[in-house]
Amino acid sequence: MFQLTPSIRLRRTPFSNRVEQAGATAFTVYNHMRLASFYESPEADYRHLKTAVQVWDVSVERQVEVIGPDALRLVQMTTPRDMSRMQDDQCYYIPMVDTDGKLMNDPVAIRLNQDRYWLSLADSDMLLYCKGLAAAGKLDVEVFEPDVSPLAIQGPKADELVARVFGEDVVKTRFFRHTTINFEGQDMILARSGWSHQGGFELYLDGSEYGEAVWDALFAAGEDLDVRAGCPNLIERIEAGLLSFGSDVTYAHTPFEAGLTKYCNLETVQGFLGRDALMKSKDPVRQIRALSVEGDPVPPINHPWPLLDTSGSVVGHISSSTWSPDFETNVTIAMVNRTHWDSGTKLTAKIPDRERTATVRSGFWI
Amino acid sequence: MFQLTPSIRLRRTPFSNRVEQAGATAFTVYNHMRLASFYESPEADYRHLKTAVQVWDVSVERQVEVIGPDALRLVQMTTPRDMSRMQDDQCYYIPMVDTDGKLMNDPVAIRLNQDRYWLSLADSDMLLYCKGLAAAGKLDVEVFEPDVSPLAIQGPKADELVARVFGEDVVKTRFFRHTTINFEGQDMILARSGWSHQGGFELYLDGSEYGEAVWDALFAAGEDLDVRAGCPNLIERIEAGLLSFGSDVTYAHTPFEAGLTKYCNLETVQGFLGRDALMKSKDPVRQIRALSVEGDPVPPINHPWPLLDTSGSVVGHISSSTWSPDFETNVTIAMVNRTHWDSGTKLTAKIPDRERTATVRSGFWI
Repeated sequence: MFQLTPSIRLRRTPFSNRVEQAGATAFTVYNHMRLASFYESPEADYRHLKTAVQVWDVSVERQVEVIGPDALRLVQMTTPRDMSRMQDDQCYYIPMVDTDGKLMNDPVAIRLNQDRYWLSLADSDMLLYCKGLAAAGKLDVEVFEPDVSPLAIQGPKADELVARVFGEDVVKTRFFRHTTINFEGQDMILARSGWSHQGGFELYLDGSEYGEAVWDALFAAGEDLDVRAGCPNLIERIEAGLLSFGSDVTYAHTPFEAGLTKYCNLETVQGFLGRDALMKSKDPVRQIRALSVEGDPVPPINHPWPLLDTSGSVVGHISSSTWSPDFETNVTIAMVNRTHWDSGTKLTAKIPDRERTATVRSGFWI
Repeated sequence: MFQLTPSIRLRRTPFSNRVEQAGATAFTVYNHMRLASFYESPEADYRHLKTAVQVWDVSVERQVEVIGPDALRLVQMTTPRDMSRMQDDQCYYIPMVDTDGKLMNDPVAIRLNQDRYWLSLADSDMLLYCKGLAAAGKLDVEVFEPDVSPLAIQGPKADELVARVFGEDVVKTRFFRHTTINFEGQDMILARSGWSHQGGFELYLDGSEYGEAVWDALFAAGEDLDVRAGCPNLIERIEAGLLSFGSDVTYAHTPFEAGLTKYCNLETVQGFLGRDALMKSKDPVRQIRALSVEGDPVPPINHPWPLLDTSGSVVGHISSSTWSPDFETNVTIAMVNRTHWDSGTKLTAKIPDRERTATVRSGFWI
């Protein structure tokens, strides 16, 4: 295990003090900020996430605000998802795709009104792509990073906790819709969303100065719910098939390879700059698959593990894998060639400790 | 001290195995890759850098390749530095500036020929800004990240070491010029440059597969020169006034505030998109300064430390500070308001352990 050197360049979040007080000691770096990897342990956090409620500092989902008469036009330039019918209270998961048809990010887009959007980023500086489009396209928009930091409330008791802190009405918010709450006089967006399959919300903290007060209010109100600090959980997100941009899918992949076909509205979308390229890549020769890897828990992964066929040829790569206590297997995400991606196909996974059998599944676990 | 969790998203470099074998255990994350913070200790590394020669894995200086008939036009859109007279063997330090006149990065640009440039990035994904310009501006260029990873050879014995490995002729290369060397049949760019004030070179490793062989060749040839693995050294780079993008200067600052006036050729530059904005910010009200902070060694910095005037008003912020064994003071970089930036001005630095006197200097140390 390596140490992470303190640096002003790795920006603190509005919740960093609380995260440290809650005992996080292992972090990754994401969008130039620290993101906790676990609190008690990945396994203990996982069990708690599935039974109670957690508060996650996901400020690393940095926001890009696009505002102005050309805001919709700019956002649509970046994504094959048809944004034209999006409503003011909607959240859209949008693959962002370049002119070669390759992924650059996969944020959740929030529509605040027809001329104002937030993009809640995965790990790449899409602020800069949007600024480049605005500058060279002479678009009538402002593009900037607002002082907005998401705080996720996740788990089966999330509804109860947000109702206590933000009012009973907020639990009527439907999945991937957002509402406005008021905290100490400040309006903020609350969306039913989050990077787990356990249900919950993301509060778009609007003003860093409210961060610790919001955190404290959630913990004060949720004591009997066993509310704890948490973070995206490696085990649970693989079970749920939540892809990690930069790990499972990268700049090298198309949205079709990523299995994001349903977010590619190539027949109706107008103004998306990667449309011609994507039209040619609709029929991918490799794609994301769920696999079970046999045996005892695999070691941590820090480089892609090859998948071999019976002749020893490389037919794919594992990008995420860990032991699932609930499913008693190594839940795994891989990019697999079409020739070997059918459910039930058995492959050999070259894992540093030893070779193991990996079986392609028809879908994820939860 | 926090742990850095292993992740496939934090990409390995062509030299990662060698870096780990050389004993690095503390890292930062920079452009989605790990960068060693020190090997023996910051102080021991510093002494060795100033007396011998070090090999640094600076693959984190990710490259953006811009190639095609509009390559010069695209690069010029991003920077106030006049690129029109750049020669094919030149390296230019270029502030990259948006349409609001704010910094986005400060890479070294390498001109390979009139239609082909590499940008050796600081810590932001400028690949995406360049792609945005190309896409919306319909420029006739390709923009991508090539498989090129810089390896720095730094220190007073760097000339001797590169002469032994790459031939006597390469030491004739002038400062911020580059030449082509051949390693095992592969041509690669070698520039006299690097993020220290001790002299040396940066090899633009062209092909990850050559990484360990190049590393090993340098260590085999330099044994009697006491060659060691190293990395950018916090103490030495502050003494030399080498600014860290993301720490000392950020998206919030103009190049004038960063003290980069000499790289802003606003009278002659043609096609730079931020020109109008920069024309209005030529007279900054705050600017980078070197300061000495009194007393024993300061603690590590992970957030800006305020600088106060005698009335207690905040008149600046410290971004980098550490103890210098050679100058026997805490060498410090800060952004200071014009009212208090004159050499000799005494300010109060609010450092977490206690308040200390900080004195503005006329320049950096080396």
